[in-house]
Amino acid sequence: MNKIFRVNMTTLTAKVEDVPANWAGLGGRALTSTIVSEEVPPTCHALGPNNKLVFAPGLLSGTAAANSGRMSCGAKSPLTGTIKESNAGGTSAQQFAKMGIKALIIEGLPKDDKWYGLHVTKEGVTIAEESELIGKGNFAVIETIEARLGKKTGVMTIGPAGEMKMAMANISVKDPDSKIRSHGRGGLGGVMGSKKIKFISIDAEGAPGITIADPDKFKTAARVFAKALLDHPVAGEGLPTYGTNVLVNILNEAGGLPTRNFTTGQFAAHDNISGETMHDTIVERGGKTKHGCHAGCIIQCSQVYNDKDGKYVTSGFEYETIWGLGANCCIETLDDIAEADNIMDDLGVDSIETAVMFGVAMEAGVLPFGDGKGVIRMLTEEIGKGTALGRILGGGTGHVGRTYGVTRVPVVKNQGIPAYDPRSVKGIGITYATSTMGADHTAGYTIATNILNVGGFVDPLKKDGQVELSRNLQIATAAVDSTGMCIFIAFPALDIPECLPALIDMINARFGINLTGDDVTNLGKSVLKIERAFNQAAGFTAADDRLPEFFKFEPVAPHNVVWDFSDEEIDEFWNF
Amino acid sequence: MNKIFRVNMTTLTAKVEDVPANWAGLGGRALTSTIVSEEVPPTCHALGPNNKLVFAPGLLSGTAAANSGRMSCGAKSPLTGTIKESNAGGTSAQQFAKMGIKALIIEGLPKDDKWYGLHVTKEGVTIAEESELIGKGNFAVIETIEARLGKKTGVMTIGPAGEMKMAMANISVKDPDSKIRSHGRGGLGGVMGSKKIKFISIDAEGAPGITIADPDKFKTAARVFAKALLDHPVAGEGLPTYGTNVLVNILNEAGGLPTRNFTTGQFAAHDNISGETMHDTIVERGGKTKHGCHAGCIIQCSQVYNDKDGKYVTSGFEYETIWGLGANCCIETLDDIAEADNIMDDLGVDSIETAVMFGVAMEAGVLPFGDGKGVIRMLTEEIGKGTALGRILGGGTGHVGRTYGVTRVPVVKNQGIPAYDPRSVKGIGITYATSTMGADHTAGYTIATNILNVGGFVDPLKKDGQVELSRNLQIATAAVDSTGMCIFIAFPALDIPECLPALIDMINARFGINLTGDDVTNLGKSVLKIERAFNQAAGFTAADDRLPEFFKFEPVAPHNVVWDFSDEEIDEFWNF
Repeated sequence: MNKIFRVNMTTLTAKVEDVPANWAGLGGRALTSTIVSEEVPPTCHALGPNNKLVFAPGLLSGTAAANSGRMSCGAKSPLTGTIKESNAGGTSAQQFAKMGIKALIIEGLPKDDKWYGLHVTKEGVTIAEESELIGKGNFAVIETIEARLGKKTGVMTIGPAGEMKMAMANISVKDPDSKIRSHGRGGLGGVMGSKKIKFISIDAEGAPGITIADPDKFKTAARVFAKALLDHPVAGEGLPTYGTNVLVNILNEAGGLPTRNFTTGQFAAHDNISGETMHDTIVERGGKTKHGCHAGCIIQCSQVYNDKDGKYVTSGFEYETIWGLGANCCIETLDDIAEADNIMDDLGVDSIETAVMFGVAMEAGVLPFGDGKGVIRMLTEEIGKGTALGRILGGGTGHVGRTYGVTRVPVVKNQGIPAYDPRSVKGIGITYATSTMGADHTAGYTIATNILNVGGFVDPLKKDGQVELSRNLQIATAAVDSTGMCIFIAFPALDIPECLPALIDMINARFGINLTGDDVTNLGKSVLKIERAFNQAAGFTAADDRLPEFFKFEPVAPHNVVWDFSDEEIDEFWNF
Repeated sequence: MNKIFRVNMTTLTAKVEDVPANWAGLGGRALTSTIVSEEVPPTCHALGPNNKLVFAPGLLSGTAAANSGRMSCGAKSPLTGTIKESNAGGTSAQQFAKMGIKALIIEGLPKDDKWYGLHVTKEGVTIAEESELIGKGNFAVIETIEARLGKKTGVMTIGPAGEMKMAMANISVKDPDSKIRSHGRGGLGGVMGSKKIKFISIDAEGAPGITIADPDKFKTAARVFAKALLDHPVAGEGLPTYGTNVLVNILNEAGGLPTRNFTTGQFAAHDNISGETMHDTIVERGGKTKHGCHAGCIIQCSQVYNDKDGKYVTSGFEYETIWGLGANCCIETLDDIAEADNIMDDLGVDSIETAVMFGVAMEAGVLPFGDGKGVIRMLTEEIGKGTALGRILGGGTGHVGRTYGVTRVPVVKNQGIPAYDPRSVKGIGITYATSTMGADHTAGYTIATNILNVGGFVDPLKKDGQVELSRNLQIATAAVDSTGMCIFIAFPALDIPECLPALIDMINARFGINLTGDDVTNLGKSVLKIERAFNQAAGFTAADDRLPEFFKFEPVAPHNVVWDFSDEEIDEFWNF
């Protein structure tokens, strides 16, 4: 029943293909990375005619499994030059899955300068010229498409940043409240922009839905799985109460909250921007402290943040965004950060890359540290309008560093380093260095075990055990990213014995197969190896699996430690 | 007698060291590349504390050998990320050699934000804070230093571009007429700027001069060598009459003159900018058609170009500059290009990188093709002033491409491709692809044999023999770059049997040694291998030895050919 939908933007044609045998058992990241690896020449220009943009729901997306609604998007990244997988919540994964769309592959570039919109139904894809929405923000796109096609229509869209092919442009996905979730990292919005696709609208009307091979087994496993999520202190309590922003105070306490462009590990004004403060502010202003990015999410780490007058400002207000503009840029006002978050969603830029980039721009003297209003103005007036300065900033952290000759540039493989200082949380440095995606905390979230005591404890200030920790987590994450599951299911999976077997049982019940835990581990290993082989063919070597040298030479307060792994120790990561 | 002068900009100290045994037989590129390779960590930030800037005169610099006055400068390049050697004429190489300075090594970064000037005498180097000249152009620097220290003082300096650490910033060297020659390629001016050194002044008063081991043998060989240079039709006639710009009409005729950002191979207005037109214009306006970049040059390919009123505009007005702003940017007025050349010298930017960059900027719509006045304005008002747009442009060709999402970006290893289209002159494509320096025609100038019938003939439109041709020329060039000789001695060396033996005889007579032709070839091979090993340790692989994909997909008129070497064919280059 499952099909591959394939769109050629050069010929402006679309077709529906059978699923090749070797893709049949794959979903999410495993599938997008396999397709990119098989069909995209690794040395091609990421914005040129030979790159492809691939969307695939996870193996469990569309089922009743809790937290299984993540869509994977893959391509060669214009930011990193590596293979890229970025997954997002929203409604599209479940719509695709219920329509039997195993993957949507978009190839080629239009011959003319026109813009297009794609419309996806269970019959296939239609391509239509678009002019009204060009230059518009993502919120306007969603609103207009709902007005055109109805409230239930799914939307994946790029904002002005994607139209300008900026390296930090993301792809936004409509969530159940018509707000925005993002395929954030790696500039995938630029790839969509290069193909001159402003949006992809999705009409799942009449979708056949998912067939479950063993419904009883599935139901039982799904219940055990959901209970594990709710029983875990982080997934069932910390995240729903404070959102991911619960981490501000935790990381500040640990001395691992990168502050003032990674020059120190604690932020004096951390209380102003903490999850606790945010929670109280949301309650006081009548927002929502809990909110799911997709139907079936029971962790509800998202929230709705209102302004002083109780008017909606943003949702999905993440720790990484708040850390990045807060501690890293020294902005002390949650309201400024929330306003910036809304603008970033509308422009379609990755809030992590943007925040890390602003830290470097501040170091370069483009604007002062702490200038929240300056950030808002630059987002709107420079990046949004594509001025020369906006183009510089829109190129991301590494680009700003190169433009101004800054040497303290926190990137790996040109992607901005997120919200955890590798010097004081050593395990995450291994993940940043070795991830096939460039610096990416989600690729192997050692914070769980280094800081949150999830899955045991590995001392964040010692080197012992970090490589193994990162390796195990990266393998597991690559597998989880293939199921359509949210990464936060890893917390209960690491701590509650019934959780992972229940997840595997759901996959087995869904497809009528008999995967073991080892099979899942092997899937994760295989995904990482496919991705690494792509990167190697694109020219990446062990020399790219390194943190910027300043982490070796500049000790970070309060622990006054450097990141001291040798090249040989880092390279141990790939021994599996 | 020879010494190493070493300056530490962190401690603001300088010392004089003995020459280590393994550096004793080296000079020029062989020495700078060896020092960089031994002392600079390949993965360091090029603008950070661990890069070093190395100057070394050639093995024959300072002697009476014709055309031996080239200074080599090396470092890790901020433009390419590779090792970089860029050599220049001017007076400094001969001054260094006569003072017994084997190499000047500059390491570290100052702890404060002050600017400095270095002063080199036979006793060593002194470091002094500099404020008056900061922000000033190169001509003002030379003029001021001559006023301070006397007309004979040598000067190596950076302009505003180098101060801003722009990736296309060069290092300028005073020539015998107090005008400018440049270590052009690879952003070495940015490295000097990162070390906060505005200029290096050189007082060669009391220099002991060169000791020749066998003066008679040297004199005889020098005479044979000089005669070979004068007898050769290119070195002795074409270059002195028309300068390097003799090539505009030749390459246009061959269909290999990259035009309008490498979209076609012929320029309709080629006559306006040709060497013949330039020659007549110079004569008419009372300029000089011949001019040497250093004392002892007998090829005299340089010239002095005046404006309509007979007033000096520029000298060293090269084919690559005229091609780059002319055909490649479609500017049809030699006077505009000459004015831009003067400004580029004053700002201290590489005229090749700048011209190739403007081609991409024009394709991006930053300014229209053909807009000579626009280029002049952007050089002065944007790059010179370091505006946001100026910072974008100052980052070079690849940087502009990334900033605006352009896909037709003629670079290899991020360095702009010079004045010969690899599709219609296939051999030069092998040089661009494989050179350890990024795209660099001088690294292995196959144009000699593909187009000028020097050293035989290899059909430019066929693949046969090109890899071998480029390999032989790159090996020979690496050796020649180590002698302090100008690259144009290659023309007679390839055609006149007595030339190369005379060059070797001069080296042997100078040092009292017995090098053979094979030794010289082995030196060239060894230099290339040292450089390649550095690049590999920095993370470069065969995937970086590639031309941009558009050369494979877009046929170029008039021959309608693509560059069609397979990866395997390119990689054959390194089989030696």
